[in-house]
Amino acid sequence: MRTDRLASALTDLKSRLKPGELRLDARTLAAHAGDRWFASHLPDAVALPRSTAAVSTVLRFAHENRIPVTARGAGHGYVGGCVPQQGGIALSLARLNRIKEVHEGDFVAVVQSGVRTQALQDAVEARHLFYPPDPASRADCSIGGNIATNAGGPRCLKYGVTRDYVLGLEAVLADGTVVRPGSRTHKNKTGFELARLFVGSEGLLGVVTEATLKLLPLPPYRGCLAVGYDAAPVAAAAINAVFAAGILPCALEVADGFTLAAARKRTGSRQLEGCEAMIIVELDGQERSVRAELRAVEQAARLPGTRFVQRALGAEACERVWQVRREFSYSLRDTGLTKLNEDIAVPRSRLVDLFEFAQGLQQRHGLPVACFGHAGDGNIHVNVMVDETQPGWRERSEAALDDLFGQVIAWGGVITGEHGVGLAKKRWFPLAVSPELRTLHRAVKRALDPRGILNPGKFV
Amino acid sequence: MRTDRLASALTDLKSRLKPGELRLDARTLAAHAGDRWFASHLPDAVALPRSTAAVSTVLRFAHENRIPVTARGAGHGYVGGCVPQQGGIALSLARLNRIKEVHEGDFVAVVQSGVRTQALQDAVEARHLFYPPDPASRADCSIGGNIATNAGGPRCLKYGVTRDYVLGLEAVLADGTVVRPGSRTHKNKTGFELARLFVGSEGLLGVVTEATLKLLPLPPYRGCLAVGYDAAPVAAAAINAVFAAGILPCALEVADGFTLAAARKRTGSRQLEGCEAMIIVELDGQERSVRAELRAVEQAARLPGTRFVQRALGAEACERVWQVRREFSYSLRDTGLTKLNEDIAVPRSRLVDLFEFAQGLQQRHGLPVACFGHAGDGNIHVNVMVDETQPGWRERSEAALDDLFGQVIAWGGVITGEHGVGLAKKRWFPLAVSPELRTLHRAVKRALDPRGILNPGKFV
Repeated sequence: MRTDRLASALTDLKSRLKPGELRLDARTLAAHAGDRWFASHLPDAVALPRSTAAVSTVLRFAHENRIPVTARGAGHGYVGGCVPQQGGIALSLARLNRIKEVHEGDFVAVVQSGVRTQALQDAVEARHLFYPPDPASRADCSIGGNIATNAGGPRCLKYGVTRDYVLGLEAVLADGTVVRPGSRTHKNKTGFELARLFVGSEGLLGVVTEATLKLLPLPPYRGCLAVGYDAAPVAAAAINAVFAAGILPCALEVADGFTLAAARKRTGSRQLEGCEAMIIVELDGQERSVRAELRAVEQAARLPGTRFVQRALGAEACERVWQVRREFSYSLRDTGLTKLNEDIAVPRSRLVDLFEFAQGLQQRHGLPVACFGHAGDGNIHVNVMVDETQPGWRERSEAALDDLFGQVIAWGGVITGEHGVGLAKKRWFPLAVSPELRTLHRAVKRALDPRGILNPGKFV
Repeated sequence: MRTDRLASALTDLKSRLKPGELRLDARTLAAHAGDRWFASHLPDAVALPRSTAAVSTVLRFAHENRIPVTARGAGHGYVGGCVPQQGGIALSLARLNRIKEVHEGDFVAVVQSGVRTQALQDAVEARHLFYPPDPASRADCSIGGNIATNAGGPRCLKYGVTRDYVLGLEAVLADGTVVRPGSRTHKNKTGFELARLFVGSEGLLGVVTEATLKLLPLPPYRGCLAVGYDAAPVAAAAINAVFAAGILPCALEVADGFTLAAARKRTGSRQLEGCEAMIIVELDGQERSVRAELRAVEQAARLPGTRFVQRALGAEACERVWQVRREFSYSLRDTGLTKLNEDIAVPRSRLVDLFEFAQGLQQRHGLPVACFGHAGDGNIHVNVMVDETQPGWRERSEAALDDLFGQVIAWGGVITGEHGVGLAKKRWFPLAVSPELRTLHRAVKRALDPRGILNPGKFV
């Protein structure tokens, strides 16, 4: 659309919305140009609707006038998924931020898309209920963004990802139609799985305004174990031993030597000295069970090559263990390098292969590589560390990622486990997804968004 | 298509397949006309492919010639989902019955669609792995049928339904294209959730030939508690008390007075005397934890109004408790009546309302109603008992179901929790699903099956 026609169309749209629901000022545009990844692109307008009806008005208008609409949650994505790559309208769900209902009898919560994940968790835990998905950014990210990316987190090993908690949705289709796929029952086999088709669709199929989420009884107790090893294969053997004991932990994380060295430097922690790998195992449930099973985990995980064992009983002690885990990102930042966080997933048995391959990457491309993440899921954050002051850093890092993704796919792994494709992984989407399957993506996209106005310029 | 043209087309198709892969004899046609529900319709041919390539040949040919194709698993569905309502080809996946891989390191199994659910469970449990979904018909039904209906079962309360274990699929699209959505990793956010779009699609979107399924570590121990009560509200209170203790049981089943009276008559069980409701709670995990938590469950569930408590520790003892549960269906059959098993689901807090409403149904329509099922999920099997020798039985039962489904939907419930829509629920699909959402179903259907050859005459 030509600039002058677009400007007049946006003025028209503004008149159909309530005051403040469409912003055109430079500061608001700049604040809605990107997420936590480095790419950004200015939208031509920012919609800040206060109601589903307003979202519908925006989409109906955009559909009629073929204006791009890129929905966004809290803007804490890691892959540029909400960058309005072709301009048009950035549609923020931030003002739809009400927790409409927490029902203790039905074990459901009904929340608008802009609700922060942590706010939901606090609200339900106060009533002894539990919403398990726990992305690292949960204090900042929103349920809508979690749904768009099917967000995970450490606890997803035992409890599953965002998708597994979405019972029903209210979503606005590209042409402004409001639909309510799913329901508030914990089981439902009425028709196709349309609610979950929107989960993980990165704003390409519709705009979610409200979600009915499944809740669980809150496990009353938590226990944690951190174990350091002198070699990565010992950590992998320990992970296998835990599963072999018939235990499915709440979380099972791993970190490699590079990450631990950076963490040791930052925290001065002596126990990390000489560790080439560390695992964190968390259990939850009844106190007596957690205590007994944590002893079983320790027995399984204490293999020759163990450098230290740290036990934590109760929520507070557990949080101290996780604090070390959270330091990993800051520790890597302390190196002064920029980390390209690639959330690949590999079949679980490939963990040691992946660690070795990451070391090889380092040698071949001259870029340090730090691995840590959700070992139980095979979902490892491979952080390629680049020095943006060095000439050719971009080519070198792209070559390293070509190498990494090629090997991950050869192992039957995937290029993204929980962050999404966005712009960051767009280049490798054709490598990861067959031509037939890309055709199927396009067919589904066309069925739901025939004019291609939703988040254009992304992976479909 | 005219009969003579269809006959010649089928002869043509036969020549493109291996001997025995397309059958036209009356006996084979009759054996593939329906499932466990009462409706049936003869197909014009039965395809029994031995390979994905043959499935692709059948579909490509049917697509070109606009011949209906209705896929079927083991034929143990409860809603007529695989009845070839418009004739054409009944496509049986029965011969694709290989367990191709069980990988202990990756915690995945790769199986063809025709594999029996029980056979898969036996194979993985022998290696201390666990495939949780446990439909009651698991000895007879197949993984392909489980995927088509997103099958559940008692254990789905803790572990989720079939969908939650489908990591990747091989599926043949309407035009014969073979796609492999998903992967063998436990987490994957590459593109849309297309693998899970096929789950629960009742053969309307494609034909699944192979599945990569997630496995868990096998819990080493099981414990069970059966508790009888003198009134249904006491059972509901007990269920709430178990959840309030922060316990998410593996299974939590309930049965009403009518069901228990029939079971008492069949089994002669004295403990069921005077019981108007019964719950069964199963826990699994480490032996010590299960034993301790079973005591906590008993403490929570032993309310005033308790008639008996039966404990079971270990797999064998648990199986004896479940044997009583399995007798429910036979007991109801002993009444001489035909049971219309409606697998509705209600928000969990509506359990007592549902039991009361079912009693009212009985009074209003003169048809006995027996309720039992998965209380934890709110997924209750409401069995409307009809006497087919009485004139007007069909009208009376349809009126009773109109009444039932209307109320269930008014409560925010759904008309099917795990069996699917098929033909049995087709009449109520428009009541359950809004016009906008039905339009969306049609758009997705058209995108994947533009000529409408897949399982025509069903809910889309």
